[in-house]
Order: sequence, then C-alpha cells, then structure tokens
Amino acid sequence: MTAKPFKRILLTGAAGGLGKVLRDRIKAWSEVVRLSDIADMGEARSGEELVQCDLSDKAAVLKLMEGVDAVLHFGGISTEAPFEAIMQANILGVANLYEAAHKHGVKRLVFASSNHAIGYYRTTDMLDANMPTRPDSMYGISKVFGEQMSRYYYDRFGLETVCIRIGSSFPQPANKRMMSTYLSYDDLTELLRCSLFAPRVGHTIVFGMSDNDSVWWDNRYAAHLGYRPKDSSSKFAHLFPDSAEFPEKDDITTIYQGGKFLLDGPMFK
Amino acid sequence: MTAKPFKRILLTGAAGGLGKVLRDRIKAWSEVVRLSDIADMGEARSGEELVQCDLSDKAAVLKLMEGVDAVLHFGGISTEAPFEAIMQANILGVANLYEAAHKHGVKRLVFASSNHAIGYYRTTDMLDANMPTRPDSMYGISKVFGEQMSRYYYDRFGLETVCIRIGSSFPQPANKRMMSTYLSYDDLTELLRCSLFAPRVGHTIVFGMSDNDSVWWDNRYAAHLGYRPKDSSSKFAHLFPDSAEFPEKDDITTIYQGGKFLLDGPMFK
Amino acid sequence: MTAKPFKRILLTGAAGGLGKVLRDRIKAWSEVVRLSDIADMGEARSGEELVQCDLSDKAAVLKLMEGVDAVLHFGGISTEAPFEAIMQANILGVANLYEAAHKHGVKRLVFASSNHAIGYYRTTDMLDANMPTRPDSMYGISKVFGEQMSRYYYDRFGLETVCIRIGSSFPQPANKRMMSTYLSYDDLTELLRCSLFAPRVGHTIVFGMSDNDSVWWDNRYAAHLGYRPKDSSSKFAHLFPDSAEFPEKDDITTIYQGGKFLLDGPMFK
Amino acid sequence: MTAKPFKRILLTGAAGGLGKVLRDRIKAWSEVVRLSDIADMGEARSGEELVQCDLSDKAAVLKLMEGVDAVLHFGGISTEAPFEAIMQANILGVANLYEAAHKHGVKRLVFASSNHAIGYYRTTDMLDANMPTRPDSMYGISKVFGEQMSRYYYDRFGLETVCIRIGSSFPQPANKRMMSTYLSYDDLTELLRCSLFAPRVGHTIVFGMSDNDSVWWDNRYAAHLGYRPKDSSSKFAHLFPDSAEFPEKDDITTIYQGGKFLLDGPMFK
Amino acid sequence: MTAKPFKRILLTGAAGGLGKVLRDRIKAWSEVVRLSDIADMGEARSGEELVQCDLSDKAAVLKLMEGVDAVLHFGGISTEAPFEAIMQANILGVANLYEAAHKHGVKRLVFASSNHAIGYYRTTDMLDANMPTRPDSMYGISKVFGEQMSRYYYDRFGLETVCIRIGSSFPQPANKRMMSTYLSYDDLTELLRCSLFAPRVGHTIVFGMSDNDSVWWDNRYAAHLGYRPKDSSSKFAHLFPDSAEFPEKDDITTIYQGGKFLLDGPMFK
Amino acid sequence: MTAKPFKRILLTGAAGGLGKVLRDRIKAWSEVVRLSDIADMGEARSGEELVQCDLSDKAAVLKLMEGVDAVLHFGGISTEAPFEAIMQANILGVANLYEAAHKHGVKRLVFASSNHAIGYYRTTDMLDANMPTRPDSMYGISKVFGEQMSRYYYDRFGLETVCIRIGSSFPQPANKRMMSTYLSYDDLTELLRCSLFAPRVGHTIVFGMSDNDSVWWDNRYAAHLGYRPKDSSSKFAHLFPDSAEFPEKDDITTIYQGGKFLLDGPMFK
Repeated sequence: MTAKPFKRILLTGAAGGLGKVLRDRIKAWSEVVRLSDIADMGEARSGEELVQCDLSDKAAVLKLMEGVDAVLHFGGISTEAPFEAIMQANILGVANLYEAAHKHGVKRLVFASSNHAIGYYRTTDMLDANMPTRPDSMYGISKVFGEQMSRYYYDRFGLETVCIRIGSSFPQPANKRMMSTYLSYDDLTELLRCSLFAPRVGHTIVFGMSDNDSVWWDNRYAAHLGYRPKDSSSKFAHLFPDSAEFPEKDDITTIYQGGKFLLDGPMFK
Repeated sequence: MTAKPFKRILLTGAAGGLGKVLRDRIKAWSEVVRLSDIADMGEARSGEELVQCDLSDKAAVLKLMEGVDAVLHFGGISTEAPFEAIMQANILGVANLYEAAHKHGVKRLVFASSNHAIGYYRTTDMLDANMPTRPDSMYGISKVFGEQMSRYYYDRFGLETVCIRIGSSFPQPANKRMMSTYLSYDDLTELLRCSLFAPRVGHTIVFGMSDNDSVWWDNRYAAHLGYRPKDSSSKFAHLFPDSAEFPEKDDITTIYQGGKFLLDGPMFK
Repeated sequence: MTAKPFKRILLTGAAGGLGKVLRDRIKAWSEVVRLSDIADMGEARSGEELVQCDLSDKAAVLKLMEGVDAVLHFGGISTEAPFEAIMQANILGVANLYEAAHKHGVKRLVFASSNHAIGYYRTTDMLDANMPTRPDSMYGISKVFGEQMSRYYYDRFGLETVCIRIGSSFPQPANKRMMSTYLSYDDLTELLRCSLFAPRVGHTIVFGMSDNDSVWWDNRYAAHLGYRPKDSSSKFAHLFPDSAEFPEKDDITTIYQGGKFLLDGPMFK
Repeated sequence: MTAKPFKRILLTGAAGGLGKVLRDRIKAWSEVVRLSDIADMGEARSGEELVQCDLSDKAAVLKLMEGVDAVLHFGGISTEAPFEAIMQANILGVANLYEAAHKHGVKRLVFASSNHAIGYYRTTDMLDANMPTRPDSMYGISKVFGEQMSRYYYDRFGLETVCIRIGSSFPQPANKRMMSTYLSYDDLTELLRCSLFAPRVGHTIVFGMSDNDSVWWDNRYAAHLGYRPKDSSSKFAHLFPDSAEFPEKDDITTIYQGGKFLLDGPMFK
Repeated sequence: MTAKPFKRILLTGAAGGLGKVLRDRIKAWSEVVRLSDIADMGEARSGEELVQCDLSDKAAVLKLMEGVDAVLHFGGISTEAPFEAIMQANILGVANLYEAAHKHGVKRLVFASSNHAIGYYRTTDMLDANMPTRPDSMYGISKVFGEQMSRYYYDRFGLETVCIRIGSSFPQPANKRMMSTYLSYDDLTELLRCSLFAPRVGHTIVFGMSDNDSVWWDNRYAAHLGYRPKDSSSKFAHLFPDSAEFPEKDDITTIYQGGKFLLDGPMFK
Repeated sequence: MTAKPFKRILLTGAAGGLGKVLRDRIKAWSEVVRLSDIADMGEARSGEELVQCDLSDKAAVLKLMEGVDAVLHFGGISTEAPFEAIMQANILGVANLYEAAHKHGVKRLVFASSNHAIGYYRTTDMLDANMPTRPDSMYGISKVFGEQMSRYYYDRFGLETVCIRIGSSFPQPANKRMMSTYLSYDDLTELLRCSLFAPRVGHTIVFGMSDNDSVWWDNRYAAHLGYRPKDSSSKFAHLFPDSAEFPEKDDITTIYQGGKFLLDGPMFK
C-alpha cells in the first residue's frame, strides 16, 4: 500500500457547509486528517482527529497546529455579520493561524477566500488576480485581510499559500448569477488537490469556479496550478430559461458581482 | 405551451444576406417578429410583421419601434459605398434607431458592427475590445459611429447594447483570410441568443467569430455573455491546402485584417 | 525677410470663438491665411483670403481646398445641437474636408476635437489617448467621428492629422471643473504650432490643456509633438476658494468629465 | 472676515508625531478643530476641542463624530507592534471610525495610510496605486485594511476618502532610503488641503512624497487632486554624500521599499 | 500526384536530437529536403540532400542556402557551453544564416529558440511574448540574440521568421518541471507546419508547448498561427504522483522556469 | 581632504568620442581612474592608469579588471560595421568584460547601450524600458546583446548594471531628429553619477536624454536612479526653424527612431 503524501492535513471549519463536503474527499491525501471547528463535528472516523477550537484563541490555535504539515483553512464566519464577530473569527483567527503555521514550520496553506473580496466589480467586468480588490461587505473585507496576511507570510518567511476566491460552491446554482460563479464540489476538490501538490505556488490567488459558459474572472495568473475544471453550470441551464425580464438598471444585485450579498448584511438593516 | 420571452423583436435589414438567414432562426425568442428593410421582404409568414422602412426617415423609424421590446439591427449598407449613401443609411439610420428605441423604452439592442471597424490592424495583431478602432473604409467608419452612438445611449440612459463585430458570416470561407474571420450561421444565432438573454450586458463589444484555429481577436471583455462557438472554420481547411505561395510583403490585403475590403471601395476607384 | 513656412494655411470656423482668437496668431506661419466660415467674417486683412463656405457642400469644400498646404479645422458646430444639424456640419463636413484635402495633396491637418469625445469618464479617472472614447453628447459623437475619419485617411493615404481634444479654451475658467480643463489661448497657439511643425505626427491624439494642477489626462502618447504648456489655471485659483460644499454624490455634472454639457443638449429637453 | 470652509474637522492621533505638526496647520480650514487621541493632548487652544478617546471604543467614537463634517485620521499605532494591539487600534479603530462617520453623514475623510502597505516591493520597482499591495508588517497589513474599509464605504455609501500612503514625514531624511520617501511637513499639509477641497475624490489612493529626485511611486491615478509638492529631499543631499559602500545583495533593508521596518517588528525578535 | 508546397526546405541541426525526429516528418512539405549539420548525418534517403556544414563558415552557409525557399533552423549548440563555443555556433552561425537567407531571397524561417531565453522568470509567473527576456545561461543569451537578429531582418527586409521558444521536446517528461514545458513530437511538427504555412507571420514569437495542464506561457500573440496542440503532459501524470516533498524555498531549480539548466553550465563549475 | 568614493573606476573606450569627454569628468569619483582602449590614449595624467587592451582578448580583459571596483563600459565599436567586427568588439568584448568583472568581484557596471537597440520603433511611438527591443542595425543588435548579458549577470550573481540607451550625445544636435534624442555632456555625466551612486540599481535600463521638449522615451522604470537632466535641446531650436518641408511618408529615416542609421550600415551598400 502506498503512503499518502501528507502526514497530517488540518482542515478548519470542518463542521461548516464546505467542511462537511470535504471531510471525506481529502482523506486520500493525508495519513491523518485533523478536523477543527468551533462547533461540534460529531464522531471521529478512521484516520481523523477532531479538535474543537476557537480560532480567536491564540494558544489553542498554536496547539492545534502541532504536527501539521498542510492546512486547508475553511474556518471562520462565511456570511455577512457584525464587524466585531467577523473580526474575532476571520481577522484574529487568521492572524493566529498564520503565526501558528509559521512557528510549526508548516509549508503550505490553502485559504478559502471569496468572490466577495471583489464583489463591487460589475457583472460586465473581467477581472484577474492582480486587479485591486473591491470588497462588498465586512465579510469581504475580512477575506482581503486574509489574502494580505498570507501575502506577508510568503514575502517574509516563504510560507506558501493558495488563496481560492470561491464563487458559489453548492449542489446547484440557486439563481442566474450563480451560473457565472458556480463551483462544483468535484472541481473544488480538484482545485484543492492542485493547490496542495503543485511543486511551487508562492502566493497564488485563484478564482474558484467551474468551466462555466458565462464568466467574470480570468485565472491566467494561476495557470501554474494546473487546475482544469471538469464541470460546468451549463448542465443547470434549464433551471433558468431565457427570459426578457431584465433587471432594473439600478438593481445593484445584478449590477455588481457580489449579488444580493450587498444587501444582506445585518449591519445595514 | 410556453410563452416566448419577448413580445416583439424588431429585425432590421431583414431582406439582406444575414437578415434572410436569421428570419426563421429568431422566431423561438419572440411572440412576434417585426421585420424591416428598405427592400421588399416578400410575404409575411406566421408570427411576422413586415414593415418596409427607410432608416433615414426619422418619423418612420419612430413608428417602426412601437411595441418593440428588443432590436436586432442588421439594416443599412453592408459594403463599401460612397460616403453620402453610407451616411444616410448607417449614420442617420442608427441615430434615428437609437432615438426611437429610447423614446419607446426598448431595453436592449444588438448592433451588427463589423470587423471593418478594426480592419487596419495587421493580421499578425491580437486585438481586444478595448483597443482603439482603426476602420478600413467609409463603411467601417460608420460602424464605429454606431458603436459610439450605442455607448452614449447606455451611458446616458442605461439602454443596453451588444455590438457584434461580425467577421465573415457566410456558408463557407471564400479565401484563406476568412479561415480566421469565419462565423457560422449557427454560431451567429447563438451569439444573438446570448446577447439578448444575458441578465446584464451594459455596453458590450464582442467579436463575431466561430471557434477557428487561427484568430486575431480575444473576446475576454465579453466573457459575461456566455458565448461558446460550436463550429470552426477548420472543417473547410481542405479548401485551402498548405501553400508556399506567400503574398508579397506589401500586399495590403494580407497585411491588414480588413482584407481586400481596403481596395474595393468605390470611393477609391 | 524670411519666407514663412507654409504657402497657404486654411483655417475653418474662422468666425467662431476660437477662430477669432487664432486669426492673427497663425499669420506668422503662412504666406497666406485662407479663412473660412459659414458665417460672415468681416473684411479680409492683409495676407488673408476669406471664403464663406458651408462645409456640407462637397463641391464648395473641394474648391476651398485649392492651393492649401495645411488645414486647421475649427469649423462646424461647437455645442450640443439636434443630430441632423450636427450631422451636416460635423460629419458630412469632415468627410468633405478630408476627401478634398486628400484630392489636393494636403499633407497635414489639425482637427479641433473635444474633451466631449471622452466626457463620460469620471473626474477621478486618468485617461490617455489609447483608451476607448466615451462621448457625452451628439456633439461628442461627431468629434469621435472626426477622429476616426482622420485615422482612416492616415492609414489609407498617409495624410497626417493631429486631433486636439480641446478642454476649455476661454479667457478664464468659468467654474471649478475648468480648473482641470483650462487651455489658455497662448498654449492653444503653441500646441497648434507644435502640431503643424513636428517633423512627423502620423495620427496623433493630444489633450488640449494648459499646465494645470489638477488634471485628468496624460499626454504621453503625444510626447513627440514637443508641446510644453506655459500657462496654468492656478493663476485663477482665487476665483474658486476652498469650499466644503461638496456636490451631491449623484450630481452627474461633477461625476463626469463632460460637466454640465451632459445636461445642456437640446435633444434632451 | 471670511468664514472657514468647514464647521468642524476632526483630527485623530493629535498627540502623535504628525498630529502635533498638523494641529496648528489645519486651523485655517475649519471653524472648530476637534482633536482626539488616546494620550493626553495638553490644553485646548483657541478654536480647538480636545476629546481623549480610545478608537476601539465604538460608543466613544460614535460620540466623537458628532457635529463633524470632515476627518483627518492619523490615529492608531504608527509602528510595528504585536498583532493584538494593532488590531484594537488600527482595525477595530478604523471600523468604528467609518461606521460613525457614515452614521453622522460625514462627507469626506483623509486616511493616513503608509508606504508599509507596499513595503515588500523592491527599491528598483515603480509602483502606481492600482498595483497589488504587499505589506511589510502587521502595521502595513492594518493600513491595507483601512484602505479596503474606506473603499467599501465609498462603493456602498458614497463616503469619499483620500488614502495617503505617507512616505517619511520628518524634519529631514534620516538615511539614504528616506531621500526617496521624504515628505516635508509643508507638502503633507498641502496634500491634506488638496484632499479636503478637491470637488470630487471618490476613493483615491495617493503616495505621500515630496518632489524628490529618486522616486518609486507614480501618482498618476491621483492627478485629479491637484497636489504639487514644493519641497524636495535634494536639499538634504549633502547629508548622504556619494558613496561606493553598496549594501550586500541580500540586505533586505535596501532591497525592499519598506526599509528596516521589515526587521524592527517585535513579533519577530 | 500533388506537388509539395516547397521546392527545397533546409533543416539545420539535422543530426541533433530534434533534427533526427523531424527528418522524416517534414518530407511532406517539400520536394527536396536539404539536411545540414556539422556532424555526420548518415546516408541521404530519397528526397534528401545532405550538406555537412559549419554554420560559423560564412561562405559555406551562403552556399548551403542556394535554391532554398524555407529554413528550419535547429542547428548550433543546444546545451550550456563555454561562451566562445556558443558564440561561434549560435551567434556567428545565426548571423551567417540570416545574411545568406536574405541574399538568396528566402521568404520564411523558423528559428528554434528556447525557453532558456526566459528561464529566469519564476515558475509562478505567467509570460507572454512581449515581456522582456531573462536568459538563464550563455545558451539562453544566444537564443535571445537569434530572436533579435530575426526581428531585424524582418523590420529591415521583410524576411519572415517564427521563433519557437521550445519547452521540453522529448519522448516524455523527465521530471515534474517538464510537466509544464512538455512539447510532444507531434505537436512540435504541427507547430512547424503552422509556422511554415500561415499566410503571414511577420516576426512571431511562440512558446513551444503541448496542451499541458500547468502552464507558464500564454501564446496570445501567436494566435494567428492557428497552432492547436493535440497532446498533453497529463498522460504522464502517473510518473510524478502527488507528493508533499516540497523543494526548499531557495532551490533555484524550482523557483525559476529554466530549471536545473541554471546550475549545469560548464562556465560555473 | 575627503576620500573619493571609489578606489578604481575602469573606463573603457577612453579614446573614443565620449571617452575623451568623460576622462576628466569622472575623476572626482575615484582615487584612480583606469582608462582603457584599443587605440592610443596619449599620456597618463595625474590619477590615471592607461591600459591599452583589445576587449576580445579574454586574458587581457581579466587582467584589466584587477583592482577595479566599478566599470563604465564605453568601449567597442560605436557605429554600424560588418558583423564580424561587431562580434569581436561588442559581443565577445562584453562577454569577456562581464566574466572578468564577476571574477574580480566588481559590484557595479554602467553599460553604454544605445537608442539603436530600439531604433525600429516609430518616431511617433512612446517607449518604456519594458517594451521589446527592435534593433536597427548589427550595432543595435550587439547593444541588445550587452543588455542581456548584464541582465544575466545580475539574475545569476547579483552583479548590478545600469544600461544607458544613449540618444545623441554631441555638442549640439546635428539635425531635427536629434532635438528628440539629444543628451548633453553634463547630463550624461550626471546620469553616470546617479548610476554609480544610487544605493541599489539591480538591472536598470535608462534612456539617456536631456530634458528635451519632444521625446519618445519614458524613464519611469529608472526613476529610482534620481536622474534629473538640467539641459534641453530647446536651446538649439533656432538651428532648426519651423518648416513645412515634411519628409515623404515612406522616408524611413524619419519614420523610425533610429534615423539615418538604418541606411548607413556598410552591410547594406
């Protein structure tokens, strides 16, 4: 039997939506998978270690990182929320995570960033990873923060990170906007695999999307990863038949890439 | 039976080469198709309204637009011609068309622009939609004019247009140049469909070409349209076997993307 | 006594605002100055030829061009107006002018274009001459048309033109916006001199502005002209003292570079 | 006597190095100057209001903003420090500040950002404001955070900010690196004036430097501000005579724009 | 029987690794194939002419070119070597070749350039053909020289060249780096065909790679060639299973695109 | 008395046109100035060492470099010449020079490159240092070679070079073209000073021109050098009065930046 490439991968946010999806899918890559979340994660299965952990607890995070050789960081808050909560989970949490990873000599991380880091671009814009960020929410700002923290740890210490600006990773698109941002679970898994095993990634920002017909993002600066999506939102085209009911010209949920996220935030109710 | 998305699409230039091709192909999208041309269009078929109209007649165009909710503008002169004729058909015609569309609250147009808007680039150049235009003829200048008129109506009133810089939309390429510019009728139809039904297009310029091997144009700024050509000129490769009879180095019909159009104009005989 | 460089310069629009300013200033460059306008230009002075001419009259324009070796084209309509009037004066007029210039072997023109060719950019944008035009009016569209016509005559026949996108050439800025767009008469004259006498200009687009403090335009692609403005709007700074009365965030006359031009047009009353 | 443009400008960080410099210089612009700092600011002088305030205290900041019509934000930590401290002062502090400014209808802020937001670029690189940030410290990351927060408040609410990436604003350059980053107090003051009174600034990022000979930063995207530095570090050239004692090729304090800041951080001792 | 397009193609370097591969593959394109090398090439087969020739011998090269209508230049030294040897074979050799081709009226060449012309870019960089070269060896410098010589002959005389920056053209990738640079023999052959028969190529630089998953190079400026690779290194993925043995962060053979070439040169032993 | 910064600067090409100009001007920077040329340099003056040396002689160059801590490389052929001569002096010479400099631990070189490295750009083009080179002669190709050799020695060994693409450094412009390319002797000297004493230059390419009115080159990527020209060709404007004698449209000596150099080469007689 072949040894698995990693000794111990840490997956944070293991009780979250994508965390549950990934829990089994990443087992092939690591002898042990350490799962972490602030919430309950159920029973440990074979090859798993469960560590309940609040990422804003510096000491706990330092301990969490012991013996880890790669990190998939999906932890923290994944929707709009009051800034103080975002700050604890997504800002202090990420700072603790990187300091711990650095101290323990982790060589590579994958950071689950988000399209909401650039949600204030228009749906008629074409972006690449070098264009200025334009976050659409407190959540989006915290994702830019994470990208910058990882940039720093690479420039300062050579700690490599792939930041995936995840589009919409759900079983299927829930509206027409997600036809452009859809990322299938299989493609997400493949993108994680590429991010973990490419010989060198430095600090790479990649847009997490499947091979959709209508796209807003150009992954040219992540071409070294070798990511080739196999799925496309086109298989769900029948859910959104051609329609001439155009949105109003000032409807910001279709003007901007961030969609209705721009309106959902509790800060603005 | 499902209702069709549009109530009434107006197709101008219905008696022209592409107009005839499109006449039946667009029926699926609209309860009624209003066809217009300065020339005779034959008998009205089921679901059609025929309106003979000179686009340079402002009042007639205003009337033509009544009850229309989308426009496919293929009308006007489509070859090089004396400027006065071009001006009436393609300049005054387009101005009338946009003013009428605005007054009647039309939400979206597709404007049949042309590769001759950029025909003075070289056949070794790679263009995108943001590069300066370089028209190769009076006809090409009139197409740039139309692109600008539509740009204005979008910036000023939010009236959306997709400008398609059509390459060579014929049954098959007539010469080696058209191997690069070929646009099959099926791909043209699909591009029209994408242009009409994308949730938001703003003011988009797209190069109308099939998935040819040799290309000069990059559609990155129209990627939100979701257009994916299905055809390629490669199926006609046998018509133009490999040949070492290179054109002379000063043969402008192969130096420039506009091809022999640069020489054909009646203004320069 | 030294001979003057040109035999006969044609200045169109000689009865207009800038035409009157330039009438004496250009005499040093040409043995004879031919002045033309659709309106009355008064008495011919020494070294002048006066030719009243409607630029939309092709035959008259052809005759107007006889014996001319350079053209300063300031003719046509210089404010927003109904499209039909714009078309006659600024579109047909320019087409006639270029065809006549070509037929008579004129080697160089200066075309008075306008900042209204790009008036829909924001006052916080930085433009250069290669960025897409965004006209703010029928007038602005006609100026883009002129730029394209001159581009064509250069690509096709080698007829050189400098297009000057004139900002605000008045005795002094009339509002704060013009602090950015101000072009003094002396600087305009110097820019004309550079445009006429640079050894080679090809087809050059230059923004016509003085050395103002706040600017929106970068003349890097016209650096070969050697134009160095001597004046600055800063000498009028006292007319517009520092004020905290910021415009509303949706006030389009300060959002967009075109200023109140966007609202003035008779088409939209 | 002329009224001053603003009713009440808030200057945060008034007890800091630059705060003390600015305290008197900004009086001409505002009827009342409200000064704030976490440290003691001494006695209030004529036209001043002193409010000691911890920016991480949301309620206190909300109160601090009452009656304010513009903000110069120089508060927070201005050197490298442990992340937790940076987070309270520069991250939570900025979030509180923007939320308060928004709630009180403030129209414009100036945010004292820093060259340490881009300190990991090389001293042979030429930057503009659209290039990706590369922070060189926890402090630098917090400055990027502030730039993003202000970007969001502009995109979401139209609240305008000028972010000044201050170079080295001291009486004189302390080493050769500062010959490139020097910003005189007079030029800083003028840049603040431009930032406060430009008719429209949207969200502008400007590099804060004098007219130095050797520069790394191009302010083309802030040209609308009208900032023209009057000073230059060249007057201090005699302090750093020509020397052939080149730094070692791996000396990161001269390789990178951030200088010795990269080594000073307490986090890395 | 159909005539072949060329009368006589010259293949230099015919005894080298790729020369042997191409010897039979190019026969379809030319009545006669003239093969040349400094080393012995064995027996002439049908349709072949063998000419042993030292490319640094100007007179011999002039004679070699007699009757040739196209050249595939694969001759010279193809590994790192002392500069004097490189200079004779790859610098003087190329100068002789171009002068001879010009004198004999050859219309088109294909120059076997190399990825080592840009080997000092990082393996996380995305290049296009317009970016500055960064050679990684004396060999790489000689390839840049050849690209420049061909650029000159095109600008000066209209002699067309396609420069192929060949990645790794071997039966299969020998290491993980070559998964990105792999060019199958079939794809190389197809790229030669495109280069020889495209109607116009001017001076084109193209990266020679198959349709690999992980890539560093964007061939957008060579899209007019119509080259579409059929193979991919992905079929060899099993040879390099996913591994977490990341290279050290200062391991220049994985930092830079040139790979171990950077260390192999005899100049630096 | 203050010590001079360098112990021993080597100036090659000391008997050439610019060598003679610089001989005295560089004395302030170095205790000893070693002068070298293939031609006779007359008597050694105080502080000088004269070493007659053929740069194509590797051993001689190695010896020439002993004890040198900086190099100003003005040696070699400075006009168009047969390739074999260019190769010995400018290609082998430069290779020998860099290998010797590397072996002796020289830290910085200034390489006299030339505008002829980019002479095939048009006189209406605006260049920066990152655009592809387009040499106009064998001489120009050899200058690109030198730039590449120095690029390599920096990437490989950290040996710093400033490449100065010298325009026209003569007492005064000899024709109108030189009004754009003029570099006064004082400005050349200042540019050398900046190049030698900037704390870090890496591999910098700078266009050597004075502060002329009409320019084709943008030195933005060399702004770290701190070079500010004091002179301008405008003081010679009276030598070339305004003239309407435009060159023919196919006159390559005014179309291209390289000027009559394109025609002068002995290779093409």
